[in-house]
Amino acid sequence: MATIHGELKPSPRILLGPGPSNVNSRVLKAMTTPMLGYLDPEFIKIMDETADMLRAVFCTKNTLTFPVSGTGMSGMEAALCNLIEPGDEIIVCVKGVFGGRMADIVERIGGKLTVVEAEWGKIIPPEKVKEALEKVKAKVVAIVHAETSTGVLQPLDEISEIVHHHGALFLVDCVTSLGGQPVDLDGRGIDIAYSGTQKCLGGPPGLAPISFSQRAMEAIKNRKTKIQSFYFDVNLLERYWSGEQRAYHHTVSMTMVYALREALRIVLEEGLEARYARHQRNADALKAGLTAMGLKLIAQEGYRAPMLTTVAIPDGISDANIRKALISEYGIEIGGGLGDFAGKAWRIGLMGESSTQSNVLLLLSALEKLLSREGYKVESGIGVSAAVRIK
Amino acid sequence: MATIHGELKPSPRILLGPGPSNVNSRVLKAMTTPMLGYLDPEFIKIMDETADMLRAVFCTKNTLTFPVSGTGMSGMEAALCNLIEPGDEIIVCVKGVFGGRMADIVERIGGKLTVVEAEWGKIIPPEKVKEALEKVKAKVVAIVHAETSTGVLQPLDEISEIVHHHGALFLVDCVTSLGGQPVDLDGRGIDIAYSGTQKCLGGPPGLAPISFSQRAMEAIKNRKTKIQSFYFDVNLLERYWSGEQRAYHHTVSMTMVYALREALRIVLEEGLEARYARHQRNADALKAGLTAMGLKLIAQEGYRAPMLTTVAIPDGISDANIRKALISEYGIEIGGGLGDFAGKAWRIGLMGESSTQSNVLLLLSALEKLLSREGYKVESGIGVSAAVRIK
Repeated sequence: MATIHGELKPSPRILLGPGPSNVNSRVLKAMTTPMLGYLDPEFIKIMDETADMLRAVFCTKNTLTFPVSGTGMSGMEAALCNLIEPGDEIIVCVKGVFGGRMADIVERIGGKLTVVEAEWGKIIPPEKVKEALEKVKAKVVAIVHAETSTGVLQPLDEISEIVHHHGALFLVDCVTSLGGQPVDLDGRGIDIAYSGTQKCLGGPPGLAPISFSQRAMEAIKNRKTKIQSFYFDVNLLERYWSGEQRAYHHTVSMTMVYALREALRIVLEEGLEARYARHQRNADALKAGLTAMGLKLIAQEGYRAPMLTTVAIPDGISDANIRKALISEYGIEIGGGLGDFAGKAWRIGLMGESSTQSNVLLLLSALEKLLSREGYKVESGIGVSAAVRIK
Repeated sequence: MATIHGELKPSPRILLGPGPSNVNSRVLKAMTTPMLGYLDPEFIKIMDETADMLRAVFCTKNTLTFPVSGTGMSGMEAALCNLIEPGDEIIVCVKGVFGGRMADIVERIGGKLTVVEAEWGKIIPPEKVKEALEKVKAKVVAIVHAETSTGVLQPLDEISEIVHHHGALFLVDCVTSLGGQPVDLDGRGIDIAYSGTQKCLGGPPGLAPISFSQRAMEAIKNRKTKIQSFYFDVNLLERYWSGEQRAYHHTVSMTMVYALREALRIVLEEGLEARYARHQRNADALKAGLTAMGLKLIAQEGYRAPMLTTVAIPDGISDANIRKALISEYGIEIGGGLGDFAGKAWRIGLMGESSTQSNVLLLLSALEKLLSREGYKVESGIGVSAAVRIK
């Protein structure tokens, strides 16, 4: 006999990890909206409105801007597998787990990979990209904007200029940055960008917003081989997401589109500039508090992402004990280290709805209490005091 | 300035197309459950319970049974790209759009494709699979259980025996059948099966339940080349969905898992046998009604899928007029023809929550009225009378 498991009743959480972040109740409510057919004119209108608001958040006029039916990682795969044919020269900048994943995907596709590396916690220096482009006639240069494994925010302007000077396409992973930092596709000349819904956009995970410039679409139309993936083939997806006659490709999740649409409404109601400023202010307060408590921030100074802060776990402190106690005693989730930083760092996210002054103060207070209990010496209230001084 | 589009307020629909079907309010409510971290022990437990109930519905003990983070089409791609290496001999049975898509994907992966064809609306005769296997030493034989483009339900037992006699793996598309017809993986020796959530399982679209037998997993472990897709790589997904230590692969949509879990609870509360019987009874009533109205059913007699009925559009009747009027006057969606059947057939789905006696009677009444208005001769009430006689 099959076991019928009980009613769903998870504990409440304050999500201050690498995503998902907390979701506004308006978004949760939007998801109770009943289904529509995937070609229902009312649903097509909802798709169009969603794409329209996505363009506003990406700061682009790109026609082909839509959410891929999968999570942020599906956006990475969709971006790469549409652009790259076996044998194409591709430069991938690797300075953390997600750059590493791009390189892995390029190899799976059969692209000829050149890696430009930087130490974890540091940015990729533009001159290293220039050097690589002088050696290799690359079709695409790929980089991560906010590297979720290290908390580094990569400057893009200079690299974009170098990439275009060499006639390559510029592909940027905006999974963690979109909605919390300007990505500004058209202004920066980014040809392909993808993101996730569950970070600074404030939606649940499940879709990967993506955008292709006209130049990127031309490169795709000029491929000699078929795109290896049917599910991610933008030639087919374009016919479902744009144009007068919509053609069935797959059954999009109405629920996820409803959620994204409502999340985007909230983003635009707040205003992009105000939203970026909020993310920055709360991040500054958190970083001031952690530093005052004697904790060491890992990401290179001047290039710290506002939505994700990596902090070194002090010697003698148990990673597991602290994170377990944060969850069980405060309902707070923070992230553990990923890849090279496993066991060595915590990743504290302040993304979307989770980026609030209250969350910063609560986390600093809770951390102080738990770290003290584990034997770490910290002056009472010093973190919170430093945080509240940030305007 | 960005346009902030208005509140979401789509019209109510009775979804009697090829999916999505209507979603129970319990499932909609489950989706308002707040997020959890993707490695939160409470979420891992929810994942385990969901996988457990999926096993019950698939009728399998397969450890690797979980929902792929994409729609039904992502299940097709995940199944094929994990199993197939470039150069592998693959037999795909094609008797409609979805078999054709499997063949397309096999070619994109670089598999050596042999197609076994049947006329649209007919089943694949087992002897044709036998003939193909005598010519080609195939690694995998792939077939669609309920072909959503034709409304044919393919018998599987004899083909499964032939496939295993020849040492091949048996891969079955259960997108439309799961939850509405026995798929019985272990009983039938199906090695790989995938489905969608938005048809007879009664959930929203967005996940693709999938299951791999031990033999299938061994074939994957013995690959000589890397799986072309990172996103669908089951070696990585296995480490997230099973075992003691869970490893991050991608940020699963909590919301979609909540929805699937609740939908599966409802499926198991009803009981699989009762659910299959309900689907069959309502389909029989619909088919009796349509036939009594002089309409021609397209799928081969004896092999008509209970969850999807294809009916020929009578001469002189406008496909678009009828479907538009059904939506605008009754809020009922039925599907248009797909592929070879575009403009020639309607596809009427009775899946999951949408499979009710009331929906059958309402649709027959509405169709009678609209067809008469378009000049089709039909005796008043004859469809409904025939339908209500079915017990």
